Amino acid sequence: MTGHLTQTWDSGLVPRASVRDQLIASAVDVFHARGFNGSSVQDIVEAAGVPKGSFYNHFASKEALGIEVVKAYSRLVGAYVAEAGASDIFSGDGTPLERIRRYFEAVIEQNVSCGVRKGCLLGNFATELAPHSTEIANAVTEALDNWSAAVSRALVQAQEAGELAKGADVVALGRYLVDGYEGAATRAKLIGDRAPMDEFIRTTFDFLLSQRG
Amino acid sequence: MTGHLTQTWDSGLVPRASVRDQLIASAVDVFHARGFNGSSVQDIVEAAGVPKGSFYNHFASKEALGIEVVKAYSRLVGAYVAEAGASDIFSGDGTPLERIRRYFEAVIEQNVSCGVRKGCLLGNFATELAPHSTEIANAVTEALDNWSAAVSRALVQAQEAGELAKGADVVALGRYLVDGYEGAATRAKLIGDRAPMDEFIRTTFDFLLSQRG
Repeated sequence: MTGHLTQTWDSGLVPRASVRDQLIASAVDVFHARGFNGSSVQDIVEAAGVPKGSFYNHFASKEALGIEVVKAYSRLVGAYVAEAGASDIFSGDGTPLERIRRYFEAVIEQNVSCGVRKGCLLGNFATELAPHSTEIANAVTEALDNWSAAVSRALVQAQEAGELAKGADVVALGRYLVDGYEGAATRAKLIGDRAPMDEFIRTTFDFLLSQRG
Repeated sequence: MTGHLTQTWDSGLVPRASVRDQLIASAVDVFHARGFNGSSVQDIVEAAGVPKGSFYNHFASKEALGIEVVKAYSRLVGAYVAEAGASDIFSGDGTPLERIRRYFEAVIEQNVSCGVRKGCLLGNFATELAPHSTEIANAVTEALDNWSAAVSRALVQAQEAGELAKGADVVALGRYLVDGYEGAATRAKLIGDRAPMDEFIRTTFDFLLSQRG
């Protein structure tokens, strides 16, 4: 993507990505494919097609870039879900539980489109970096918390629609579904097959959450 | 543990661990704490207190040791669960779902006893090594499959006892619970707190699987 942008004739109509944005976009791809410790600043500047010297004009460290990558990856997944027409977990066609299902299905399609072997970058960073980098761990925690909170708010709508018991702990259930997706994405990465993620959808929505009103 | 064994006076009553077993036991600890790529053969022989030269008498490569570590870690978790009196997921006090709950609670205690920041070694290896080492990925897949299959067999007992609907897909549900535990263990590792794993237990057994007969 970034490489393509830099090679495109600047017509004045398409804004050119800033060097900082190029570095972040390339680092999302490189970290997703090779992990944080498996990627060097050199790998990232090469992928971005920018001079190595420019890196430290924009980021104090590889770790500082890692924090921006966590935020960018979360936005990227959100943007993909929006394009897939499943953005609005809170309004649109169907019941609240149907919308939550479509939302997770779109997240899975985004995962598959990146290559199931890469897994979810948030889960990868969580296991790789939690003991080593507090700042990146905090960024991943914040991303997972925001994500879980959105699912929880949609679960409140399911309660209001009578699809989910009034007494259900929607905060815990929102986190549970995000954690369950992450576990399924890890096994999908391990076996190189999306099946665990599709099974996550079926077991959650066809069995565990069906008729829980 | 291993260091202690090698320093103990050999009374002839306590069998001394073989060098191979010492290397595996130390590698479980070292890989669990620092990851596979973050640990060198040198780190492992030092932790085991054996000469570096002896390593390649026992293992063709660090990867070959990694495969044995996956097997040993699975046995270790199983042994801990047995000591906790929750070993028999298939028989003992309580209903089948109560036994499955106690089993996962014991797995969580084992995780906590190792240090929640280390996560589950199987999940760590899955995200770290899936794209790089097919042989270790296969060993982790086999360990997770065996684990899921045991949970599924216990879920059949829950069906027979009328605690779980006859039509439930117990194979999918066994995998779902293992994946869900792994996702919760990952978030526990990330935030350095066991709460996500305890929440996994409560949401699964107090809400999702309660009254599903």
